[in-house]
Amino acid sequence: VSGFGFGVFARPGEAPRVGWGSGELVVDLSALGEPFRQPSLNALLGMGPAAWDDAIGRARELEGVGAVPLVDVELRLPFEVADYVDFYSSLEHATNLGRLFRPDPEPLLPNWRWLPVGYHGRAGTVVVSGTDVVRPRGQTISPGSGWPSFGPSRRLDVELEVGFVVGAPSRPGTPVPVEAFANHVFGVVLVNDWSARDLQAWEYQPLGPFLGKSFATSISAWVTPLALLQDARVEAPPQEPAPLPHLAGGRDWALDVALEIELNGALISRTNARRLYWTMPQQLAHATSNGASVRAGDLMASGTISGATRGSEGSLIELTRNGAEPLRLADFSERTFLEDGDEVVLRGRAANGVELGEVRGRIVPAR
Amino acid sequence: VSGFGFGVFARPGEAPRVGWGSGELVVDLSALGEPFRQPSLNALLGMGPAAWDDAIGRARELEGVGAVPLVDVELRLPFEVADYVDFYSSLEHATNLGRLFRPDPEPLLPNWRWLPVGYHGRAGTVVVSGTDVVRPRGQTISPGSGWPSFGPSRRLDVELEVGFVVGAPSRPGTPVPVEAFANHVFGVVLVNDWSARDLQAWEYQPLGPFLGKSFATSISAWVTPLALLQDARVEAPPQEPAPLPHLAGGRDWALDVALEIELNGALISRTNARRLYWTMPQQLAHATSNGASVRAGDLMASGTISGATRGSEGSLIELTRNGAEPLRLADFSERTFLEDGDEVVLRGRAANGVELGEVRGRIVPAR
Repeated sequence: VSGFGFGVFARPGEAPRVGWGSGELVVDLSALGEPFRQPSLNALLGMGPAAWDDAIGRARELEGVGAVPLVDVELRLPFEVADYVDFYSSLEHATNLGRLFRPDPEPLLPNWRWLPVGYHGRAGTVVVSGTDVVRPRGQTISPGSGWPSFGPSRRLDVELEVGFVVGAPSRPGTPVPVEAFANHVFGVVLVNDWSARDLQAWEYQPLGPFLGKSFATSISAWVTPLALLQDARVEAPPQEPAPLPHLAGGRDWALDVALEIELNGALISRTNARRLYWTMPQQLAHATSNGASVRAGDLMASGTISGATRGSEGSLIELTRNGAEPLRLADFSERTFLEDGDEVVLRGRAANGVELGEVRGRIVPAR
Repeated sequence: VSGFGFGVFARPGEAPRVGWGSGELVVDLSALGEPFRQPSLNALLGMGPAAWDDAIGRARELEGVGAVPLVDVELRLPFEVADYVDFYSSLEHATNLGRLFRPDPEPLLPNWRWLPVGYHGRAGTVVVSGTDVVRPRGQTISPGSGWPSFGPSRRLDVELEVGFVVGAPSRPGTPVPVEAFANHVFGVVLVNDWSARDLQAWEYQPLGPFLGKSFATSISAWVTPLALLQDARVEAPPQEPAPLPHLAGGRDWALDVALEIELNGALISRTNARRLYWTMPQQLAHATSNGASVRAGDLMASGTISGATRGSEGSLIELTRNGAEPLRLADFSERTFLEDGDEVVLRGRAANGVELGEVRGRIVPAR
């Protein structure tokens, strides 16, 4: 584990507290006051941008003083997840999935270029990097079969995503315009939105993914503040058609973050978050455009980030072309979907050199 | 407001605390200990069935002593909603909606009779009865139009539902079998799952409802404990095909609760929860069958409850046949969908005479 940002850690026998992750070290911030002596970042999140900037400054001052090696601590879930929203904002991913799941000639549905399609996931099963993931059971149906069966998923997949974490709440009934993004959002995490493709395919019509996703979502132990990523901001690619006025703008918030997926030690995907079609300010503006409020601890993830070239896809179903082209791993074994014992690591490094916290997870057998 | 159950109330100038609603009165339970001096039921929820039974007994003992008229207090959201899941468990409702939203000859999708279809809604916008609901804005598309427009919803609807509230948590990775339902579930609330049909129709493919629902969900101020509804339990209607083994059972948990919808003083629907196809124990078993854990404050709602006869549908889109047959109200005005200023009240009364808390909400104009 390495990376930069705020998180929650515990030394053996001590209460968890807020720390500042800095490479292979963590700085104990509990001397900075009550919000830093909590087992979650939520108190800090709710304090707003001025307090966040102050906390960053003080954390960096303390970097030289009494930092603890990460190997001596346990990293906890950094914040209590309030609501978890998952978008679907990569044009390449949505196109790939549309081709796999629907027979239509046009892989993108008509709404996709008009709004950042998204849905609510399960907040209570978001876990911190390093937590084992139990293979889910569920209903699946074989092609041509008249009835489903129940058993361990056989198409267990990863989804490489970047999520943003809301701090300062918004008022019920009042949208957050794209320009106000940084007034509300604290920072970003890496996200592995584990997905059981066979469960998802059978259940997801008409109300969307449920058990195919809800068993676990892993996030990095560090929330990297937006302030550390200022120098990694780039212009997002053009949008066609032009978005409606309430979604126009926020295009200067693409993040140039190089991303990779490692499976059992083999690098199986390299991509970048900078080409996402919908940006974070647009996602937040959309999610609140109906008046829905946000609050400290809301997590909004990008959806799987896939590039346009082979080897830059953010999920196994894309990387293996729905299982038709297995990956060759470091030990010469082949993979289509995840097997028990497999370990996945997501990593991200911004163009300005700031590393996000990694997301590590190992699959353990269904119980 | 009337009804029976636990809730949170505040007297002017005093801190909110746990109370026992009993008809037109509320009993102050703060003398029963720390969990009752909280601004939410979550501490009590987490304590488990033995503590719940004890609390009911002690609340009833206190009924004669120092109860406060409801008119003298403010009722708060009774619990912090952890995750909110909404099912789709009424055969009649799913059939009606399938006919309206899809052109296929078979209104039910193939999975519907095999599993309780559901999805996650927004927990952070669940509000207590009496809270105004701001008309949502959003994207809609007119038939034949090539592009959407953004504005206030013109097809704002209600959904009459009953939800159950989880208390005792389950272990991650470990399903809750139908037989263990009452070990985890504390009680029930009435739910109005406000829905903007025009937003929903445009956004919901392929990941399900999002902004068409996320602006507000209203629940009753009282959580009625399962123990008070024992005498209102009936056998659920038969299921065909027989469910898979992990969803078999739990059929003795249909609730004979008469339900009604009032709109501006006119009774527009009368129905009953007893004929829901999927029962609460089956819903919980399904939602955890993939190993997803539940925790105190999880709310799982039935989905719209519609009967088979005219006037027993749980939503305006069904009652008015998609707007084609307007309702005539008490003041001789007509309604297809909700107008600004309209007030909706949901009520429920169990066969053993126990009233659930009502759910009241008034529509205020889009901001």
